[in-house]
Amino acid sequence: MKAIGFKTSLPIENEDSFIEFEIIKPKPKGKEILVKINAISVNPVDFKIRQNSAKDIVLAEPKIIGWDAVGIVEAIGDDVSLFKVGDEVFYAGDVTKQGSNATYQLVDERIVGFAPKNISNTEAAAMPLTSLTAWEILFDRIRISKEKDKGKSILIIGGAGGVGSVAIQLAKKIAGLTVLATASRNETTDWCKQIGADHIVNHKDLMNDVRKAGFEHLDYIVDFVDTNDYWDIMVELIKPQGHIASITGSSEPIVLNKLKSKSVSFSWEFMFTRSMFQTDDMIEQHHILNKISALLDSEQIVSTVSHTFKSFTVENLKEAHKLLESGKTIGKIVIEY
Amino acid sequence: MKAIGFKTSLPIENEDSFIEFEIIKPKPKGKEILVKINAISVNPVDFKIRQNSAKDIVLAEPKIIGWDAVGIVEAIGDDVSLFKVGDEVFYAGDVTKQGSNATYQLVDERIVGFAPKNISNTEAAAMPLTSLTAWEILFDRIRISKEKDKGKSILIIGGAGGVGSVAIQLAKKIAGLTVLATASRNETTDWCKQIGADHIVNHKDLMNDVRKAGFEHLDYIVDFVDTNDYWDIMVELIKPQGHIASITGSSEPIVLNKLKSKSVSFSWEFMFTRSMFQTDDMIEQHHILNKISALLDSEQIVSTVSHTFKSFTVENLKEAHKLLESGKTIGKIVIEY
Repeated sequence: MKAIGFKTSLPIENEDSFIEFEIIKPKPKGKEILVKINAISVNPVDFKIRQNSAKDIVLAEPKIIGWDAVGIVEAIGDDVSLFKVGDEVFYAGDVTKQGSNATYQLVDERIVGFAPKNISNTEAAAMPLTSLTAWEILFDRIRISKEKDKGKSILIIGGAGGVGSVAIQLAKKIAGLTVLATASRNETTDWCKQIGADHIVNHKDLMNDVRKAGFEHLDYIVDFVDTNDYWDIMVELIKPQGHIASITGSSEPIVLNKLKSKSVSFSWEFMFTRSMFQTDDMIEQHHILNKISALLDSEQIVSTVSHTFKSFTVENLKEAHKLLESGKTIGKIVIEY
Repeated sequence: MKAIGFKTSLPIENEDSFIEFEIIKPKPKGKEILVKINAISVNPVDFKIRQNSAKDIVLAEPKIIGWDAVGIVEAIGDDVSLFKVGDEVFYAGDVTKQGSNATYQLVDERIVGFAPKNISNTEAAAMPLTSLTAWEILFDRIRISKEKDKGKSILIIGGAGGVGSVAIQLAKKIAGLTVLATASRNETTDWCKQIGADHIVNHKDLMNDVRKAGFEHLDYIVDFVDTNDYWDIMVELIKPQGHIASITGSSEPIVLNKLKSKSVSFSWEFMFTRSMFQTDDMIEQHHILNKISALLDSEQIVSTVSHTFKSFTVENLKEAHKLLESGKTIGKIVIEY
């Protein structure tokens, strides 16, 4: 089977930043399903791993990354109970295993959902990783209640990016929150409004913009940009007893004590926690993806695909990484097979 | 009315660390009730404020501290709707207002509960601040569900102290959790077992003791001792997707990023947040205290009083602070009037 990967971490412009190669098509065991991939999408985690996982070393075998795919179940392991051959599925996968930049991939059935039926493969491929992340941060980490928390306010830092674009929709349409999202360019502002943000605030003048929008404090703040950079302003803007959550990690220690007098909570969301630690509730990702599928099919939320490449080639994958590394993309970049 | 306070921060051994004085009995306005106090208890927050709030200065009027009292409603403000004159009440109070080290005190009705009927004033006076703290940390910050989270595990760091002694009981008897509590001396070990801890672990060999008790990870960890000191071991012991909470504050920045790969949440609990910020849900403390009252009356939980002083004098208040500052007390110290 064809795959694309790398043996050493190189700048995307380098000839060998991605290479194409052939490997043997794997066989599913246990709870694994083998998926014939029809489309993939790229995420910031992809280029972070490409840039850092093989620094100053050359791997014996090329590393295959990529964590978003839609495809058809081609074979199943002995313990598979959720899917059968021929099912259309979508998933993000497991960062500790081979990624989706290949024509076939093995994936644990518990982290796979049925693909939406009323939208294209391209539209579906954009969704798994960002939807899982956005769903988990809102409903599993912050534990926003769709019944009790209606009408509360949330600030989404990084509204137009992949995760932000799903978080805006889920926060607005599923949780019923009032959504403030950061955006600064005209395109990102329009996009965030279009998918449901009630107020657009500029990250360059965040405090004033939030106050101008009529908010002294926010019930929830989710950060998809930089926890260290936004710490002090989040401390200021969060409501007493509020909840801040982030996916970015923090390179510097945090003055956590600043949240104490307000009794504020903070959560990290890392979409790979469940598969990495094989948690007892790993199957939640199957359920979440099925809910996302239903929301897409019923048009309660829309796909966030914004760029499409028409074939799975080294050139297109390089181009997709280049775009993503620019930090300027809106929504998601998909590669069709 | 008689009150005890201080004009400057002094070591407890100093003659003037506490002084007795007379002030005019205040009149309740709005939602305030005036309470004739029958018993108080002391908490670590008391000596921290005594030691630090008037360092190198002399206040014009003595500062009255103390945040735990049981007494009788003597008068009510015009907007009071929860209580009437003659009601027996208990409460912790508001750290931004005069404390309970006095014969009368004004307190907002929304943070006051009906005192338990089947236990003594002495037993009741031990409970408000620690019960509010323990309840809020478990059910409002971590948001443990009494229905869904039964059987999960919690490590309580500082099991024998005031808050720890209530947290053990609520975690075991109300939330149905498996409770591990730290204790190292024979008396504290016995006490923690008696009030419901399933496993006692020694803070000096915490990791090994937790593993010996049969746990790789804990679903929840609450820290009543020192967030900085216990950070690394809490990071190690918390389950993926688990929740850590603390009341101690942190004097040093925290390497929060260590919790990221596990998608762990962290919450501060500060019992005074609701009254300090006059939150919309301030009346929750009224409801929590009423629940605590019912739990005490039905003997589902027991009072944590361990030391009693028989009259409200400067000498006894000094002695109570001295004991508390030793860090060796079990449960709570109460002063009867």
